[in-house]
Amino acid sequence: MKDIKITIGRELGSGGRTIGKLVAEKLGIAYYDYEIIDQTAKASGFSIDFVEQSEQRVTNSLLYNLALGSSYGMSPFGRGNNINLETQLFLTQQRVIRELADKGSCVIVGRCADYILREYASLLRVFVYADIEHRRKHLIENYGYNPDTTLKEIKRADKRRSGHYQAFTEQHWGRRQNYDLMINSGLIGTEKSADLIIEAANKISE
Amino acid sequence: MKDIKITIGRELGSGGRTIGKLVAEKLGIAYYDYEIIDQTAKASGFSIDFVEQSEQRVTNSLLYNLALGSSYGMSPFGRGNNINLETQLFLTQQRVIRELADKGSCVIVGRCADYILREYASLLRVFVYADIEHRRKHLIENYGYNPDTTLKEIKRADKRRSGHYQAFTEQHWGRRQNYDLMINSGLIGTEKSADLIIEAANKISE
Repeated sequence: MKDIKITIGRELGSGGRTIGKLVAEKLGIAYYDYEIIDQTAKASGFSIDFVEQSEQRVTNSLLYNLALGSSYGMSPFGRGNNINLETQLFLTQQRVIRELADKGSCVIVGRCADYILREYASLLRVFVYADIEHRRKHLIENYGYNPDTTLKEIKRADKRRSGHYQAFTEQHWGRRQNYDLMINSGLIGTEKSADLIIEAANKISE
Repeated sequence: MKDIKITIGRELGSGGRTIGKLVAEKLGIAYYDYEIIDQTAKASGFSIDFVEQSEQRVTNSLLYNLALGSSYGMSPFGRGNNINLETQLFLTQQRVIRELADKGSCVIVGRCADYILREYASLLRVFVYADIEHRRKHLIENYGYNPDTTLKEIKRADKRRSGHYQAFTEQHWGRRQNYDLMINSGLIGTEKSADLIIEAANKISE
């Protein structure tokens, strides 16, 4: 198998991270997730918590600007919203992701990696999703989420991820135009989703 | 392999029909496409041409209503737009599709079959797409489209298919929520796209 980069965007509760790990394991290639946050924190000088919470802050800024009537999609950041800081953080993270990708074949989960690596050859951009009931069950059973609030958490996560993605890529999160393979893991299952991704990766790195 | 229904929605020029045929051939199951139009024509008493052009007429009605300021998505048909006729045709086609599906395993391309069969067990809803340049090339090389007008044809087909789909399903055509597996055939290729669909079908009909 030649060099390949597999990016995995995913809905909260779809099992996308587990699937990503499985793919990397089965292919014997690198898997990057928290390492990106860690390296971004080191490179930027910010704390890991601060880097992790960037998604939330960016989305808050977007909502704030929407409330002010700014045009959505043109300039996500407005007055007093630390545009420089969040953009700086994104650019650092972008550099970290590209450096990791340059090392060799890998799987990268989340962090707009599909967009950041869009010019790379042998890139497979995956998106993993599932229906709400599957996601809810998955989070309650595997991550101990509170059944009363899980639905709300899911909706907040969708808003957060899509807001952050759109702010930096000017593309819509989860829309087919930005991906090569999109899988309903609720129907297909974790193991088989990983197998499908591997099949597709084998094909494009032939 | 147990009973399975595979529906394939597809963008014009993505090779979705060819992929659907391949899947049916490789699995040794029925493939329905023009047979649906044929049977709908017979059952409704309309001509094949008239049935085939329903998509276009429905989209025209939608655009007409939009121009009149009717609310999109609530009632696609307006004054003088033959609501009964198009709805009747859709209902006849729906009956034909369900009758064909009831006969056993099959692949059905287009015609809102994913929506029509949504309550069936062992249903795999596929969507095949590709980037504009791949679609354009595919249509020119394989179907003799005129290079000067192909892009326009693609845009018209997207509008037509998505308008028709939304009118009768109240869902968005090509959005992940309505599908289980979405494949960029421009990257993955025709043969391999068929293989991925077969892999997924095997999994859910285990």
